[in-house]
Amino acid sequence: MNALMAPRLVPFHSATARFQSGADTPRAFLEACIERITTLEPQIGAFVTLALDAARAAADESTQRYAAGKPLSAIDGMPVGIKDIIETSDMPTKMGSPIFETYQSWFDSASVSALREAGAVVVGKTVTTEFAATQPRGTRNPWDLERTPGGSSSGSAAGVGSGMISAGLGTQVVGSIIRPAAFCGVIGFKPSYGALNRGGSLDLLSQSCTGVLAASLGDAWLTAMAIALRVGGDPGHAPLAGPAAPPAAVKPKSVALLQTDGWEIATETAKAELMRAAEALRAAGITVITRADNADLEALERALPDAEPTTRLINAWEWRWPLNVFSRRDHAGLSQSVQERMVFMASLTAADYVKALQRREEIRALHARLLASADLTISITAPGAAPLGLGSTGNPIFVVPGSLLGVPVVTLPKLRDEGLPLGLQLIGYRGRDAELFGFAASINDIVPATV
Amino acid sequence: MNALMAPRLVPFHSATARFQSGADTPRAFLEACIERITTLEPQIGAFVTLALDAARAAADESTQRYAAGKPLSAIDGMPVGIKDIIETSDMPTKMGSPIFETYQSWFDSASVSALREAGAVVVGKTVTTEFAATQPRGTRNPWDLERTPGGSSSGSAAGVGSGMISAGLGTQVVGSIIRPAAFCGVIGFKPSYGALNRGGSLDLLSQSCTGVLAASLGDAWLTAMAIALRVGGDPGHAPLAGPAAPPAAVKPKSVALLQTDGWEIATETAKAELMRAAEALRAAGITVITRADNADLEALERALPDAEPTTRLINAWEWRWPLNVFSRRDHAGLSQSVQERMVFMASLTAADYVKALQRREEIRALHARLLASADLTISITAPGAAPLGLGSTGNPIFVVPGSLLGVPVVTLPKLRDEGLPLGLQLIGYRGRDAELFGFAASINDIVPATV
Repeated sequence: MNALMAPRLVPFHSATARFQSGADTPRAFLEACIERITTLEPQIGAFVTLALDAARAAADESTQRYAAGKPLSAIDGMPVGIKDIIETSDMPTKMGSPIFETYQSWFDSASVSALREAGAVVVGKTVTTEFAATQPRGTRNPWDLERTPGGSSSGSAAGVGSGMISAGLGTQVVGSIIRPAAFCGVIGFKPSYGALNRGGSLDLLSQSCTGVLAASLGDAWLTAMAIALRVGGDPGHAPLAGPAAPPAAVKPKSVALLQTDGWEIATETAKAELMRAAEALRAAGITVITRADNADLEALERALPDAEPTTRLINAWEWRWPLNVFSRRDHAGLSQSVQERMVFMASLTAADYVKALQRREEIRALHARLLASADLTISITAPGAAPLGLGSTGNPIFVVPGSLLGVPVVTLPKLRDEGLPLGLQLIGYRGRDAELFGFAASINDIVPATV
Repeated sequence: MNALMAPRLVPFHSATARFQSGADTPRAFLEACIERITTLEPQIGAFVTLALDAARAAADESTQRYAAGKPLSAIDGMPVGIKDIIETSDMPTKMGSPIFETYQSWFDSASVSALREAGAVVVGKTVTTEFAATQPRGTRNPWDLERTPGGSSSGSAAGVGSGMISAGLGTQVVGSIIRPAAFCGVIGFKPSYGALNRGGSLDLLSQSCTGVLAASLGDAWLTAMAIALRVGGDPGHAPLAGPAAPPAAVKPKSVALLQTDGWEIATETAKAELMRAAEALRAAGITVITRADNADLEALERALPDAEPTTRLINAWEWRWPLNVFSRRDHAGLSQSVQERMVFMASLTAADYVKALQRREEIRALHARLLASADLTISITAPGAAPLGLGSTGNPIFVVPGSLLGVPVVTLPKLRDEGLPLGLQLIGYRGRDAELFGFAASINDIVPATV
């Protein structure tokens, strides 16, 4: 295990008062991040492209705005990383694929456009697995360089987890925000489906979301709201809604403890850690329900083994067009895993797809019924700590349900396995993202972190 | 009025038997189209880019496949045009905007990828208004060169209407398929929302659809199905479904005659033409209901004045991100009408948008209730013939309801005003596109065309 153990985070929101008073500046904040990039990035590999000159110029402009008393937003000056499937006008977007090695889009994606309008300082493009799918691209976990940081938002997770940036954009269709956030000990936020505009991101699937990995709950909320306020949600969807400031803590009345079929393969420590969190909630007067004592939760648990195969089928069908045209351009440029996915997708019919969409709706309906019994659902984020090796980003069995359901999900870095971070996953209800943040703030106060 | 009056169409489906027998070939079919392009295109201006060498090569390959008894699909060899907001790997996609004058995408859009897989012969990119919105780009109506062909799918309509291609891809968010198809005397088909994959098209709005303008009902159906079978619908949506061959005629039991608030400004001839069509349906034993005798239809009619402002608000909000980044690249490259739209969109809040989405759902629910009374709804497509001049693509008052409702719409070139084509618009129910084609085939037989 490597000496980077327990790396430092750089929460931003708590620093802005010092920018306003003149005690600190966004440029100085950025320079501290750049110092960590200089030291750590050669070992971690969180970035595909760095734009430090442009970041310094942006931080100087932000510094001037604070000096003039006119910051553009609550994240003016925040150093951020952009997952490299999200297009930027001033840097290539390589999609984690050699096919896109020289791809330079003309325009900023919706999320990047919004972040720049809000004054955020774009430090660079962060490593993604190939097309945000399964093939890793070498990023290491800042807690242990021999381990995966998780994926597909690998670079944003490792960058935030090692204090190189305060927040990074991620995307999730299976577990690509929550899993790496958990493995790297940071906050992860996957919003309700459609709540943040995905325009200009290779993020085309029907349960994919743009979201945020951040050093604090407040940073995650403010970054997401900065996007929603400027570019809205996906066309046809209500944008993320809620207060401009991070939602205040609201103690939930009841919490459902979700096992999923991953429970059988989870480590004893991981399971004990979740039970420890549940005990802390009970001790705070919150009702914790389990599948043993709630029929709706039991029905959901019995359906969840379908979450992964249903998601896999839906994703494969929806990848038909892009993968076929990528393959026509350069088949050898696709990884073995993508080539295998193409065989699977070619075997599917529209009827298979429509049936999978229906199954997804059934499972969503089962989950929606839980609202009568539980304010939110909690679980672990993975069967255990980040696996050793960089060949796999880990098992998605605990994170795919939140993706399939299209609901908001937050992970808190509260649990540990093998001395490494394991997230406490909080699953809310569709469109009630702000409410989930209020509960998350409360649970963040109630559950002590294992150190 | 110009001598091109009553131009010839080139239906494709009826020709394939002769390809199979060897009596004709796709290459010869294409050459006849190219002859018309040579003669007519300098006057009409349907194309932004022509790819005649590539088209000839593709037609030769198709010819060989028919000779070998192995056509790839029912549209193998069909000469098609691609609206120039739909990306192509071998031609620029200029989006009707000087900002995109040199834009060359790396990949074929979903629809183009599917058409090529099906063996269609891509003749070129057809003129679109700027970003498929309102600013025309000079295409002339083949029936009268002094008149607009309608928009925004101007070039596909004029190209099909003058026999340069058998079918053209279009897109519609307000009236951009049905209106130009009607003004140019061709079949227009806007499918149910989501039924054809829009991937790779600047077609990002929540009621926008890819669709087809074609020389015959069969050509429209086969082209759309060729897309649906290969690349499906939009992510999360059931693809267009139905028989591989064009649906057989099915006589509807009852038809709702829709006036909309455009009725007051429609010409006497246009109204009389719709009444003539209604009489023909009645004479064939079909019940025709009107707002005077059906409360559900009256309720829908009373709501429809909201269709245009609701659509305009939704579109403006959804254009925020793309127009802002286009403007940052080259504000002067945007037309006056787009610059005005930007002022409107900047005035909108998320709450305005969510309210407009709700209003859209209310109107959709009112329409869905009509299913109990009417198999489909009919109306005129415009207040009258294509307006004189090329400065406007015409009034959308009769076509915006079908767009807002997200339902399948077909226009048949059955009516006339000022001796020019005016479409008979058939509006179906969401997801029941094949059923609408069956009714359309029957109505096409029942209602005589005015010549």
